[in-house]
Amino acid sequence: MYYIGIDFGGTNIKAGIVDVNGNILIQGSVKTFSKRPYQEIIKDMGELCISLVNKAGLKITDIHSVGIGSPGSIDSRNGIVKYANNLKWHNVPIVAELKHYIDLPVFISNDANCAALGEALFGSGKGMKNIIFLTLGTGVGGGIIIDGKLFEGGDPAGAECGHLVIKMGGRKCTCGRRGCLEAYASATALVRSTKHAMKTNPDSLMWKYVNGNLKNVDGRTSFECAKMGDAAAKKVVDFYETCLAEGIASFINIFRPEVVLIGGGVCAQGDYLIKPLQQKVDNMYYGGDINPTVPIKVATLKNDAGILGAAALCLNR
Amino acid sequence: MYYIGIDFGGTNIKAGIVDVNGNILIQGSVKTFSKRPYQEIIKDMGELCISLVNKAGLKITDIHSVGIGSPGSIDSRNGIVKYANNLKWHNVPIVAELKHYIDLPVFISNDANCAALGEALFGSGKGMKNIIFLTLGTGVGGGIIIDGKLFEGGDPAGAECGHLVIKMGGRKCTCGRRGCLEAYASATALVRSTKHAMKTNPDSLMWKYVNGNLKNVDGRTSFECAKMGDAAAKKVVDFYETCLAEGIASFINIFRPEVVLIGGGVCAQGDYLIKPLQQKVDNMYYGGDINPTVPIKVATLKNDAGILGAAALCLNR
Repeated sequence: MYYIGIDFGGTNIKAGIVDVNGNILIQGSVKTFSKRPYQEIIKDMGELCISLVNKAGLKITDIHSVGIGSPGSIDSRNGIVKYANNLKWHNVPIVAELKHYIDLPVFISNDANCAALGEALFGSGKGMKNIIFLTLGTGVGGGIIIDGKLFEGGDPAGAECGHLVIKMGGRKCTCGRRGCLEAYASATALVRSTKHAMKTNPDSLMWKYVNGNLKNVDGRTSFECAKMGDAAAKKVVDFYETCLAEGIASFINIFRPEVVLIGGGVCAQGDYLIKPLQQKVDNMYYGGDINPTVPIKVATLKNDAGILGAAALCLNR
Repeated sequence: MYYIGIDFGGTNIKAGIVDVNGNILIQGSVKTFSKRPYQEIIKDMGELCISLVNKAGLKITDIHSVGIGSPGSIDSRNGIVKYANNLKWHNVPIVAELKHYIDLPVFISNDANCAALGEALFGSGKGMKNIIFLTLGTGVGGGIIIDGKLFEGGDPAGAECGHLVIKMGGRKCTCGRRGCLEAYASATALVRSTKHAMKTNPDSLMWKYVNGNLKNVDGRTSFECAKMGDAAAKKVVDFYETCLAEGIASFINIFRPEVVLIGGGVCAQGDYLIKPLQQKVDNMYYGGDINPTVPIKVATLKNDAGILGAAALCLNR
């Protein structure tokens, strides 16, 4: 029996046929062209799935079910994308619409939730039952696994891990509130801090690293220059790690997971990020003298995370 | 069938026999005398339970099980008080010890967890399956109900809701970290803010209210003077509510419960606390324009909360 995982994004729709062990038999993608009516987009999604089943030499009866990882706020119980900013979707009945093309059970969740589940089943959380997953990209996404199951909150729009406030009255967040973890620990926030540090430190190595052009600053700039010993860059990285640690320690105090997994572009820094982060968290969490350390690890699925995470939805029933 | 709930504290051990609907048939208490060896304390606890069974004219076979609500960090799976500051207990096998006196299943959890469960089964959370409970007293305790079950975290020492940081680098917390919700939203924190405001506002009505003596300041001082229009008191109350709202909004973003319940001394303020708090939270939580409001309510069990919450542990299996 196989599962279809759909990694649905504003630019591409990727899909793959996945076995129970997380092996991808075949995968493909089509452009989203997100400005079209949603019916057209979901039709393409359905046809992509059917074409993959055919290319793999399978029949539709060989497929158990379909999982969709979608951006935005998802009502997973009713199969609805409540709101997705980058698609300009409001209350789109994506599951019902997809079933016009594929007569199989269809499950959906937020893409960060799917990524968490994918790591739990096939990645660096394999074998663990209680996991906090944070993905550090444009925003801070998150997924929570409790007792082996995805926890989406009692109502839709739960598990919004990026919108835990770590500094009330602090930086403005995209959600309208001030001081959210996302405003300090996303790659976007890191870039903003890097640029700010460069402006106040005209002698910083970071200027040389980006050829004197602020437009070349990205999530790597501060980390790479910190490795070369630049003081201003070190300060940016240290502050970034402190903010992320504050969020992680709060999640540990609430959930006491077996592991905290970090995904997204920033986690490419590997141990250079994780080691000081672990040290900071170990000094923050509640009852550090009597309760064991919770290890922080890098998520491992990388490019296939979207498809595998969506397929994992089918298996996590 | 009946249940015994034990409300175990540093000063008193209270116990009651409870029916399935949360009616207390009979209750009693003994002094803890907490400096004694734990064996003596737990012996008294056992004898109190047996005496209540006898007084109620019941047999031990009429009792299904025993629940203990205990202060401190609890390893509920192994029945151990890992650490309780006010008792100076370290790794006390309370469940095994109590079974020397009562041959029944014994369950244990943190007192705030029990209070949450009591409210869920018998109090203001009755009929609801996803609840966040915060108790505002000396510290900020909390309990989390997910899908009708008490969530204690993947490992002991989870659900430490008071130790969510709302302002990194902020006020020193008893846990050693800075900026925890507890450092801003406990009754202790309210008293501290009140005293501070009085010192900087020598004309405040609050001085008159406490007969010019800072020692008379308690959790009511700022609230009562704010009701009488005192500007400094209003500011204290507003800041207190803002801090509490920051914590509550973060819990909503993570858990999306059906209700947030507030217990502890401060909740005696009723609507005067709840109404502005609700308004603040409604302006903070994620996706306020598309996601429904989560109501904030006062916990209702009051004096019986400890016994009923502990008995609820027996029913929540």
